[in-house]
Amino acid sequence: MTVPPVTRCLSATDFDAPSEDRWFEDYVPGLVFEYGSVTVSEPEIVEFAHRYDPQTMHADPSLAAAGPFGGVIASGWQTIAIAMRMYVDHYVTHVASLASPGVDEVRWTVPVRPGDVLSIRTTITEARRSRSKPDRGLVRTLLEAINQDGTPVMSLTAMNLIALRDPS
Amino acid sequence: MTVPPVTRCLSATDFDAPSEDRWFEDYVPGLVFEYGSVTVSEPEIVEFAHRYDPQTMHADPSLAAAGPFGGVIASGWQTIAIAMRMYVDHYVTHVASLASPGVDEVRWTVPVRPGDVLSIRTTITEARRSRSKPDRGLVRTLLEAINQDGTPVMSLTAMNLIALRDPS
Repeated sequence: MTVPPVTRCLSATDFDAPSEDRWFEDYVPGLVFEYGSVTVSEPEIVEFAHRYDPQTMHADPSLAAAGPFGGVIASGWQTIAIAMRMYVDHYVTHVASLASPGVDEVRWTVPVRPGDVLSIRTTITEARRSRSKPDRGLVRTLLEAINQDGTPVMSLTAMNLIALRDPS
Repeated sequence: MTVPPVTRCLSATDFDAPSEDRWFEDYVPGLVFEYGSVTVSEPEIVEFAHRYDPQTMHADPSLAAAGPFGGVIASGWQTIAIAMRMYVDHYVTHVASLASPGVDEVRWTVPVRPGDVLSIRTTITEARRSRSKPDRGLVRTLLEAINQDGTPVMSLTAMNLIALRDPS
Protein backbone atom coordinates (compact mmCIF):
# COMPACT_ATOMS: atom_id res chain seq x y z
CA MET A 1 0.00 0.00 0.00
CA THR A 2 1.28 3.43 -0.90
CA VAL A 3 1.16 6.44 1.38
CA PRO A 4 -2.31 8.01 1.47
CA PRO A 5 -2.73 11.05 -0.75
CA VAL A 6 -1.85 14.33 0.93
CA THR A 7 -4.52 16.97 0.86
CA ARG A 8 -4.53 20.65 1.69
CA CYS A 9 -7.21 23.28 2.00
CA LEU A 10 -7.62 25.43 -1.10
CA SER A 11 -10.45 27.63 0.07
CA ALA A 12 -9.89 31.09 1.45
CA THR A 13 -12.38 30.40 4.19
CA ASP A 14 -13.29 27.11 5.81
CA PHE A 15 -16.10 26.31 8.21
CA ASP A 16 -16.14 28.43 11.37
CA ALA A 17 -15.97 25.12 13.25
CA PRO A 18 -13.01 22.76 12.78
CA SER A 19 -13.88 19.17 11.86
CA GLU A 20 -13.23 18.12 15.49
CA ASP A 21 -16.11 20.37 16.65
CA ARG A 22 -18.39 20.44 13.60
CA TRP A 23 -22.07 19.59 13.97
CA PHE A 24 -25.29 19.66 11.95
CA GLU A 25 -25.78 23.36 12.74
CA ASP A 26 -22.52 24.21 10.96
CA TYR A 27 -23.71 22.83 7.60
CA VAL A 28 -25.58 25.82 6.19
CA PRO A 29 -27.08 25.60 2.69
CA GLY A 30 -25.22 27.82 0.24
CA LEU A 31 -21.76 27.33 1.73
CA VAL A 32 -19.14 26.33 -0.86
CA PHE A 33 -15.66 25.03 -0.08
CA GLU A 34 -12.73 23.73 -2.09
CA TYR A 35 -10.12 21.29 -0.86
CA GLY A 36 -7.21 19.39 -2.32
CA SER A 37 -5.11 18.47 -4.15
CA VAL A 38 -4.16 14.89 -5.12
CA THR A 39 -2.02 13.93 -8.12
CA VAL A 40 -3.21 10.73 -9.83
CA SER A 41 -0.48 8.36 -11.01
CA GLU A 42 -0.55 5.61 -13.61
CA PRO A 43 0.60 2.90 -11.15
CA GLU A 44 -2.22 3.88 -8.78
CA ILE A 45 -4.78 3.74 -11.62
CA VAL A 46 -3.55 0.31 -12.75
CA GLU A 47 -3.34 -1.07 -9.19
CA PHE A 48 -6.91 -0.05 -8.35
CA ALA A 49 -8.14 -1.39 -11.69
CA HIS A 50 -6.48 -4.78 -11.26
CA ARG A 51 -8.18 -5.20 -7.93
CA TYR A 52 -11.61 -3.70 -8.44
CA ASP A 53 -12.32 -2.65 -12.04
CA PRO A 54 -10.16 -4.67 -14.49
CA GLN A 55 -11.49 -3.19 -17.71
CA THR A 56 -8.81 -2.68 -20.36
CA MET A 57 -9.25 1.11 -20.41
CA HIS A 58 -8.22 1.19 -16.72
CA ALA A 59 -5.99 -1.84 -16.25
CA ASP A 60 -3.79 -2.26 -19.32
CA PRO A 61 -1.68 0.73 -20.46
CA SER A 62 -0.56 -0.83 -23.75
CA LEU A 63 -4.01 -1.98 -24.85
CA ALA A 64 -5.54 1.27 -23.58
CA ALA A 65 -3.07 3.27 -25.68
CA ALA A 66 -4.68 1.77 -28.79
CA GLY A 67 -8.20 2.32 -27.43
CA PRO A 68 -10.64 5.24 -27.67
CA PHE A 69 -9.02 7.20 -24.81
CA GLY A 70 -5.42 6.86 -26.08
CA GLY A 71 -4.18 5.62 -22.71
CA VAL A 72 -5.41 4.44 -19.33
CA ILE A 73 -8.07 6.43 -17.55
CA ALA A 74 -9.00 6.02 -13.88
CA SER A 75 -11.93 3.85 -12.89
CA GLY A 76 -14.79 6.16 -12.04
CA TRP A 77 -14.93 4.47 -8.63
CA GLN A 78 -11.31 5.38 -8.01
CA THR A 79 -12.03 9.01 -8.90
CA ILE A 80 -14.79 8.97 -6.29
CA ALA A 81 -12.52 7.26 -3.74
CA ILE A 82 -9.84 9.93 -4.23
CA ALA A 83 -12.48 12.66 -3.86
CA MET A 84 -13.83 10.87 -0.78
CA ARG A 85 -10.42 11.07 0.88
CA MET A 86 -10.45 14.87 0.61
CA TYR A 87 -14.13 14.98 1.62
CA VAL A 88 -13.44 12.98 4.78
CA ASP A 89 -10.20 14.77 5.69
CA HIS A 90 -11.62 18.28 5.34
CA TYR A 91 -15.38 18.44 5.00
CA VAL A 92 -17.05 15.70 7.02
CA THR A 93 -17.36 16.25 10.76
CA HIS A 94 -14.96 14.04 12.69
CA VAL A 95 -17.21 13.90 15.76
CA ALA A 96 -20.84 13.89 14.64
CA SER A 97 -21.09 11.72 11.54
CA LEU A 98 -23.84 9.08 11.74
CA ALA A 99 -23.13 7.33 8.42
CA SER A 100 -24.66 7.89 5.01
CA PRO A 101 -27.79 6.34 3.53
CA GLY A 102 -26.51 6.79 -0.02
CA VAL A 103 -25.68 9.17 -2.85
CA ASP A 104 -27.55 10.25 -5.97
CA GLU A 105 -26.75 11.31 -9.52
CA VAL A 106 -23.16 10.15 -9.87
CA ARG A 107 -21.81 11.52 -13.15
CA TRP A 108 -18.40 10.97 -14.76
CA THR A 109 -18.08 13.79 -17.26
CA VAL A 110 -14.38 13.93 -18.20
CA PRO A 111 -11.77 11.12 -18.18
CA VAL A 112 -9.15 11.22 -15.38
CA ARG A 113 -5.65 10.49 -16.72
CA PRO A 114 -2.23 9.86 -15.16
CA GLY A 115 -0.76 13.16 -13.98
CA ASP A 116 -4.10 14.84 -13.42
CA VAL A 117 -4.32 16.87 -10.22
CA LEU A 118 -7.70 16.64 -8.53
CA SER A 119 -9.31 18.84 -5.92
CA ILE A 120 -12.89 18.88 -4.67
CA ARG A 121 -15.63 21.45 -4.38
CA THR A 122 -18.47 20.96 -1.89
CA THR A 123 -21.73 22.92 -2.09
CA ILE A 124 -24.27 22.45 0.70
CA THR A 125 -27.64 22.20 -1.01
CA GLU A 126 -29.94 21.16 1.87
CA ALA A 127 -29.84 20.72 5.65
CA ARG A 128 -32.99 19.26 7.18
CA ARG A 129 -33.51 18.20 10.77
CA SER A 130 -34.94 14.71 11.21
CA ARG A 131 -38.54 14.56 12.41
CA SER A 132 -38.35 11.01 13.71
CA LYS A 133 -34.91 11.42 15.38
CA PRO A 134 -34.59 15.09 16.43
CA ASP A 135 -31.00 14.65 17.65
CA ARG A 136 -29.78 14.60 14.03
CA GLY A 137 -30.28 16.02 10.56
CA LEU A 138 -29.71 15.15 6.92
CA VAL A 139 -27.24 17.25 4.94
CA ARG A 140 -27.14 17.09 1.15
CA THR A 141 -23.92 18.15 -0.55
CA LEU A 142 -23.04 18.52 -4.20
CA LEU A 143 -19.54 17.02 -4.36
CA GLU A 144 -17.50 17.77 -7.47
CA ALA A 145 -14.02 16.58 -8.36
CA ILE A 146 -12.17 19.24 -10.36
CA ASN A 147 -9.02 18.74 -12.45
CA GLN A 148 -6.01 21.03 -12.88
CA ASP A 149 -7.80 22.91 -15.67
CA GLY A 150 -10.70 23.75 -13.36
CA THR A 151 -12.94 21.30 -15.19
CA PRO A 152 -15.34 19.13 -13.16
CA VAL A 153 -14.59 15.47 -13.91
CA MET A 154 -17.12 13.88 -11.51
CA SER A 155 -20.11 15.03 -9.54
CA LEU A 156 -22.53 13.43 -7.11
CA THR A 157 -25.06 14.42 -4.48
CA ALA A 158 -24.03 13.08 -1.08
CA MET A 159 -26.30 12.54 1.91
CA ASN A 160 -24.85 12.61 5.43
CA LEU A 161 -26.67 12.09 8.71
CA ILE A 162 -25.07 14.43 11.26
CA ALA A 163 -25.74 14.88 14.97
CA LEU A 164 -26.86 18.24 16.34
CA ARG A 165 -24.60 20.19 18.67
CA ASP A 166 -27.66 21.23 20.65
CA PRO A 167 -30.70 18.98 20.15
CA SER A 168 -32.79 20.88 22.74
CA MET B 1 -1.43 -5.25 -3.20
CA THR B 2 -3.26 -8.47 -2.35
CA VAL B 3 -4.45 -10.97 -4.89
CA PRO B 4 -7.66 -9.84 -6.57
CA PRO B 5 -10.82 -11.41 -5.18
CA VAL B 6 -11.83 -14.62 -6.87
CA THR B 7 -15.33 -14.69 -8.24
CA ARG B 8 -17.48 -17.47 -9.57
CA CYS B 9 -20.84 -17.63 -11.28
CA LEU B 10 -23.74 -18.39 -8.97
CA SER B 11 -26.53 -18.30 -11.47
CA ALA B 12 -27.95 -21.43 -13.04
CA THR B 13 -28.01 -19.67 -16.39
CA ASP B 14 -25.77 -16.94 -17.70
CA PHE B 15 -26.10 -14.87 -20.85
CA ASP B 16 -26.34 -16.87 -24.07
CA ALA B 17 -23.29 -14.88 -25.18
CA PRO B 18 -20.00 -15.07 -23.26
CA SER B 19 -18.51 -11.74 -22.20
CA GLU B 20 -16.00 -11.99 -25.07
CA ASP B 21 -18.86 -11.87 -27.57
CA ARG B 22 -21.54 -9.92 -25.72
CA TRP B 23 -23.17 -6.87 -27.32
CA PHE B 24 -26.02 -4.45 -26.75
CA GLU B 25 -28.53 -6.93 -28.24
CA ASP B 26 -27.71 -9.46 -25.49
CA TYR B 27 -28.83 -7.13 -22.67
CA VAL B 28 -32.56 -7.83 -22.60
CA PRO B 29 -34.73 -6.11 -19.96
CA GLY B 30 -35.98 -8.58 -17.37
CA LEU B 31 -32.87 -10.79 -17.32
CA VAL B 32 -31.56 -11.40 -13.80
CA PHE B 33 -28.15 -12.91 -12.96
CA GLU B 34 -26.23 -13.61 -9.79
CA TYR B 35 -22.44 -13.79 -9.52
CA GLY B 36 -19.89 -14.15 -6.77
CA SER B 37 -18.66 -14.57 -4.13
CA VAL B 38 -16.04 -12.46 -2.33
CA THR B 39 -15.19 -12.72 1.38
CA VAL B 40 -14.48 -9.35 2.98
CA SER B 41 -11.60 -9.28 5.49
CA GLU B 42 -10.81 -6.81 8.26
CA PRO B 43 -7.33 -6.01 6.88
CA GLU B 44 -8.85 -5.22 3.49
CA ILE B 45 -11.46 -2.94 5.11
CA VAL B 46 -8.82 -1.10 7.15
CA GLU B 47 -6.39 -0.79 4.22
CA PHE B 48 -9.01 0.72 1.90
CA ALA B 49 -10.18 3.05 4.68
CA HIS B 50 -6.69 4.32 5.47
CA ARG B 51 -6.21 5.23 1.86
CA TYR B 52 -9.59 6.53 0.76
CA ASP B 53 -12.13 6.83 3.59
CA PRO B 54 -10.35 7.22 6.96
CA GLN B 55 -13.43 7.55 9.15
CA THR B 56 -13.10 5.80 12.51
CA MET B 57 -15.94 3.38 11.78
CA HIS B 58 -13.93 2.02 8.81
CA ALA B 59 -10.28 2.65 9.73
CA ASP B 60 -9.81 1.98 13.44
CA PRO B 61 -10.91 -1.43 14.80
CA SER B 62 -10.44 -0.53 18.47
CA LEU B 63 -12.27 2.80 18.33
CA ALA B 64 -14.93 1.27 16.06
CA ALA B 65 -15.51 -1.51 18.61
CA ALA B 66 -16.72 1.15 21.05
CA GLY B 67 -18.82 2.88 18.39
CA PRO B 68 -22.40 2.44 17.18
CA PHE B 69 -21.58 -0.53 14.91
CA GLY B 70 -19.57 -2.48 17.49
CA GLY B 71 -16.62 -2.93 15.13
CA VAL B 72 -15.32 -1.79 11.76
CA ILE B 73 -17.65 -1.74 8.79
CA ALA B 74 -16.55 -1.40 5.18
CA SER B 75 -16.56 1.98 3.49
CA GLY B 76 -19.60 2.11 1.25
CA TRP B 77 -17.24 2.86 -1.64
CA GLN B 78 -15.32 -0.32 -0.96
CA THR B 79 -18.55 -2.33 -1.00
CA ILE B 80 -19.27 -0.86 -4.43
CA ALA B 81 -15.69 -1.54 -5.60
CA ILE B 82 -15.98 -5.20 -4.55
CA ALA B 83 -19.34 -5.47 -6.34
CA MET B 84 -17.80 -3.76 -9.37
CA ARG B 85 -15.14 -6.44 -9.60
CA MET B 86 -17.81 -9.13 -9.95
CA TYR B 87 -19.83 -6.89 -12.30
CA VAL B 88 -16.82 -6.43 -14.61
CA ASP B 89 -15.61 -10.03 -14.46
CA HIS B 90 -18.99 -11.58 -15.25
CA TYR B 91 -21.63 -9.13 -16.42
CA VAL B 92 -20.06 -6.34 -18.46
CA THR B 93 -19.18 -7.11 -22.07
CA HIS B 94 -15.43 -7.43 -22.56
CA VAL B 95 -15.57 -6.30 -26.18
CA ALA B 96 -18.33 -3.68 -26.58
CA SER B 97 -18.20 -1.44 -23.49
CA LEU B 98 -18.09 2.28 -24.32
CA ALA B 99 -17.76 3.59 -20.75
CA SER B 100 -20.42 4.75 -18.33
CA PRO B 101 -21.95 8.21 -17.95
CA GLY B 102 -22.81 7.58 -14.30
CA VAL B 103 -24.97 5.76 -11.77
CA ASP B 104 -28.08 6.71 -9.84
CA GLU B 105 -29.66 5.97 -6.47
CA VAL B 106 -26.74 4.45 -4.60
CA ARG B 107 -28.07 3.08 -1.30
CA TRP B 108 -26.15 1.44 1.56
CA THR B 109 -28.81 -0.41 3.52
CA VAL B 110 -26.93 -2.85 5.77
CA PRO B 111 -23.38 -2.56 7.20
CA VAL B 112 -20.71 -4.84 5.65
CA ARG B 113 -18.52 -6.43 8.33
CA PRO B 114 -15.33 -8.52 8.32
CA GLY B 115 -16.15 -12.09 7.32
CA ASP B 116 -19.18 -11.14 5.25
CA VAL B 117 -19.44 -12.99 1.94
CA LEU B 118 -20.78 -10.82 -0.86
CA SER B 119 -22.25 -11.74 -4.20
CA ILE B 120 -24.06 -9.58 -6.73
CA ARG B 121 -27.43 -9.66 -8.46
CA THR B 122 -27.93 -7.80 -11.74
CA THR B 123 -31.38 -6.99 -13.13
CA ILE B 124 -31.61 -5.39 -16.57
CA THR B 125 -34.24 -2.68 -16.28
CA GLU B 126 -33.89 -0.85 -19.61
CA ALA B 127 -32.07 -1.19 -22.94
CA ARG B 128 -32.49 1.72 -25.31
CA ARG B 129 -30.71 2.31 -28.62
CA SER B 130 -29.13 5.72 -29.01
CA ARG B 131 -30.85 8.06 -31.48
CA SER B 132 -27.84 10.30 -32.01
CA LYS B 133 -25.30 7.43 -32.25
CA PRO B 134 -27.14 4.39 -33.68
CA ASP B 135 -24.10 2.11 -33.33
CA ARG B 136 -24.69 1.90 -29.56
CA GLY B 137 -27.30 1.73 -26.83
CA LEU B 138 -27.77 2.56 -23.16
CA VAL B 139 -28.37 -0.32 -20.74
CA ARG B 140 -29.68 0.34 -17.24
CA THR B 141 -28.99 -2.31 -14.61
CA LEU B 142 -30.09 -2.60 -11.00
CA LEU B 143 -26.92 -3.82 -9.29
CA GLU B 144 -27.34 -5.24 -5.80
CA ALA B 145 -24.67 -6.57 -3.45
CA ILE B 146 -26.07 -9.43 -1.34
CA ASN B 147 -24.53 -10.83 1.83
CA GLN B 148 -24.31 -14.44 3.03
CA ASP B 149 -27.80 -14.17 4.57
CA GLY B 150 -29.30 -13.21 1.24
CA THR B 151 -29.79 -9.63 2.43
CA PRO B 152 -29.08 -6.78 0.00
CA VAL B 153 -26.43 -4.50 1.55
CA MET B 154 -26.06 -2.03 -1.35
CA SER B 155 -27.96 -1.18 -4.49
CA LEU B 156 -27.49 1.22 -7.37
CA THR B 157 -28.74 1.78 -10.89
CA ALA B 158 -25.87 1.52 -13.37
CA MET B 159 -25.79 2.96 -16.88
CA ASN B 160 -23.56 1.39 -19.54
CA LEU B 161 -23.09 2.46 -23.14
CA ILE B 162 -22.67 -0.70 -25.20
CA ALA B 163 -21.95 -1.16 -28.90
CA LEU B 164 -24.39 -3.07 -31.11
CA ARG B 165 -23.35 -6.37 -32.67
CA ASP B 166 -25.23 -5.40 -35.81
CA PRO B 167 -25.84 -1.64 -36.19
CA SER B 168 -27.42 -2.05 -39.65
